[in-house]
Amino acid sequence: MAVYTDVEDTDLERFLADYDLGELLSCKGIAEGVENSNFLLHADSGFYILTLYEKRVQEADLPFFLGLLEHLHKKGISCPLPVAARDGVALRQLSGRPAVIVSFLDGIWVRRSKTHHCAALGSALAAMHQAAGDFTLRRENALSCSSWRPLFEKCRDRADSVEPGLAGFIAAELDFLEANWPRDLPAGVIHADLFPDNVFFLKDRLSGLIDFYFACNDQFAYDLAICLNAWCFEADNSFNITKARALIHAYETVRPLSREERNALPILARGASVRFLLTRLYDWLTVPDGALVTPKDPLEYVRKLRFHQRVVGPEGYGVDDP
Amino acid sequence: MAVYTDVEDTDLERFLADYDLGELLSCKGIAEGVENSNFLLHADSGFYILTLYEKRVQEADLPFFLGLLEHLHKKGISCPLPVAARDGVALRQLSGRPAVIVSFLDGIWVRRSKTHHCAALGSALAAMHQAAGDFTLRRENALSCSSWRPLFEKCRDRADSVEPGLAGFIAAELDFLEANWPRDLPAGVIHADLFPDNVFFLKDRLSGLIDFYFACNDQFAYDLAICLNAWCFEADNSFNITKARALIHAYETVRPLSREERNALPILARGASVRFLLTRLYDWLTVPDGALVTPKDPLEYVRKLRFHQRVVGPEGYGVDDP
Repeated sequence: MAVYTDVEDTDLERFLADYDLGELLSCKGIAEGVENSNFLLHADSGFYILTLYEKRVQEADLPFFLGLLEHLHKKGISCPLPVAARDGVALRQLSGRPAVIVSFLDGIWVRRSKTHHCAALGSALAAMHQAAGDFTLRRENALSCSSWRPLFEKCRDRADSVEPGLAGFIAAELDFLEANWPRDLPAGVIHADLFPDNVFFLKDRLSGLIDFYFACNDQFAYDLAICLNAWCFEADNSFNITKARALIHAYETVRPLSREERNALPILARGASVRFLLTRLYDWLTVPDGALVTPKDPLEYVRKLRFHQRVVGPEGYGVDDP
Repeated sequence: MAVYTDVEDTDLERFLADYDLGELLSCKGIAEGVENSNFLLHADSGFYILTLYEKRVQEADLPFFLGLLEHLHKKGISCPLPVAARDGVALRQLSGRPAVIVSFLDGIWVRRSKTHHCAALGSALAAMHQAAGDFTLRRENALSCSSWRPLFEKCRDRADSVEPGLAGFIAAELDFLEANWPRDLPAGVIHADLFPDNVFFLKDRLSGLIDFYFACNDQFAYDLAICLNAWCFEADNSFNITKARALIHAYETVRPLSREERNALPILARGASVRFLLTRLYDWLTVPDGALVTPKDPLEYVRKLRFHQRVVGPEGYGVDDP
């Protein structure tokens, strides 16, 4: 949770003067999001979210992210919609940062997801993959298989300080993944970070997806593998195959998986584990003094990876042979 | 800025079931307030603030704080109004903490106050003092003159590590204050922490006062002295006598000061400086590892104190002889 940039009231009033939102009534920093500063904005016309992009987001990527939100919204996906100023431009500057106002999305994220939440997630994920089909901008996955080793090299020396033997364990896994990573599965725009705090529910209904700032072009089934990790392990790190089956089955009711995609699930889940293991390990080892954000435990993803290493086929995730 | 306690979605739904606010639509942690955890709550019936009281607030004081807000609101002071649940009780429990829902107050706090803001503050402060006149609960000022020395003793040994000679400087000032502190000025309920971030404006109109969690019974003019410190020094620590005059003059249009109160302003301002100097010094020296809040600089209040030590009478604050 963090607000990295303070927005002065007079700067904000000047900023809002370019919009047709009415008078500024309130603006409060929100303790959510670790990449950007977010504010709950109240104007005559309603409530909005104001986001200031901090240095971890590449400014060159913003047209992709904002264009994607507009595209998905147009296709009926419930996600934040960028609000353009009077000149038609949504991406602007405030307090020395790129800034955008998006629509306020109701919903609560679920701390302890149940099987029906995983099912709702599955169909929403597939619908998002399909809706983004004709989106014309592209963004490479900056955290894909080929980028894991360079990231690993930055923390290799100190990895064993987190858990003895960790450096060797990751090195061997990277050897396996680089040799066997699938490259020809159906691909398109994926969310790439669909953790529970990025999925809103109203009662039992999924009400929206947020935080598309890792979205990129990659293989669809990899997105599903990220969700398997983020949603189907219990707090004690046990794998809940009932949730996995519900997630994948609901996904397939909207977008059926090919045999190749199903068979790739174990290796994709291993890769997804390594991706979050490495970014968490890097953050863990490089947390700056006075950091506002507590780094997440990388070892959680070591345990998930060990689970996937023992899975021999898609039936390990509750997927029946077609 | 901080949210110390995470509220689980299911706990929150159970909590809200006791109210007549309609369905829960959204709940976001707010990066404001250093004493409590605050959330922006959206329900069918509108937006609210949900506050969870953390350990720095004494639970026994909560009936005073909440009763005061209700009392002031009834008297026409714009401040958050506690919302009672269906059983008529506003103070409840959530996630193991005392919790209350209050009305959402529009307004922005002013980062760089101008003279007219100080004037608006002055009349609002006096109106608050008068409105609280017939409030029957009492709360002693836990940070009054008699409590400064015990607080000082907790940081005396390390005070010189912040600025050489600081311990001796504070000790001498405490000797002076304890010998000369006024005790018979008009008294009642004061806010005691009316810094700019606790005063909301809509355009140039003061729209509300918030954060009454230091409110207590003490001498009215001491509250004015706290505001002189919080509002009338510029960023370079120079004293802006025009703002001070506007603040005090506007206060007096609502509640005229007695000759004794006017004459006491210099010593009250010295005391107000020591009070914030000491709490900041204590926080500075005892900031815990992993703190979410950056401690404020105690030396700012050393400089303010030095200014007030040179003021010989109320004319030093722009007050003309009556």
